[in-house]
Amino acid sequence: MLKKIDHVGILVSSIQESLKFYQDTLDLTVANMEEVEKEGVRVAFLPIGESKIELLEPLSKGVPLYHILEKRGEGIHHIAFETQSLSDCLNKISASGVLPIGGVRPGGNKKIVAFLHPKQTHGVLVELCQKGEKDLEV
Amino acid sequence: MLKKIDHVGILVSSIQESLKFYQDTLDLTVANMEEVEKEGVRVAFLPIGESKIELLEPLSKGVPLYHILEKRGEGIHHIAFETQSLSDCLNKISASGVLPIGGVRPGGNKKIVAFLHPKQTHGVLVELCQKGEKDLEV
Repeated sequence: MLKKIDHVGILVSSIQESLKFYQDTLDLTVANMEEVEKEGVRVAFLPIGESKIELLEPLSKGVPLYHILEKRGEGIHHIAFETQSLSDCLNKISASGVLPIGGVRPGGNKKIVAFLHPKQTHGVLVELCQKGEKDLEV
Repeated sequence: MLKKIDHVGILVSSIQESLKFYQDTLDLTVANMEEVEKEGVRVAFLPIGESKIELLEPLSKGVPLYHILEKRGEGIHHIAFETQSLSDCLNKISASGVLPIGGVRPGGNKKIVAFLHPKQTHGVLVELCQKGEKDLEV
């Protein structure tokens, strides 16, 4: 059902500052960087093996990720698993009573995504994603 | 320098309880489970793609991970990257002034490991590991 860890999302105050560690020290490379305006966030993806590190920087003080940053500081924010079929996956896990928060939506990198709330997952914000923007009806 | 995400470490109150989510809901499978007595922790590894989820359960109230669990609750604890050569990697990152906490040590699964403190890494406890127990002198 789950193919791999697609990425680990890490919340930072400044992508530029954090690249001193991820790029200069760990020798990872930014493959792409984009602003997701409706989430109020700038993201940078750094590939590693079959996965990626996703750095998330809030664009302004009003956005939800800014409040998390203020409350908890920088750190790991979520883990994303790639699924073969997001709709099959959501159908299957709904049998356990686990339902996505906010439904299925288009994500970055031409993916469709859904999130599971930490209360349902023993404390972890879980993103489930699928390549391609088809299959949005679940 | 870094080959892949070896695993993502997730702190839980009870591995048995959390398997209702990771095993029954997400359909992952426990490949091995062991007690690391000197760390006071029980760990379970669930493979996914080229990586693993590592569930960490404190064995008693006295151990450091129990205090983190009490303070922050269940959640993602660390991310581990596999290196080709841990000593080469540590030599390279030390040029940036980043030094491992507690030195190089044997880890689970016949690996050698070193940890970087969140203060040095923009909030993330980073484990660097290498397969095989050779190469302990750095």
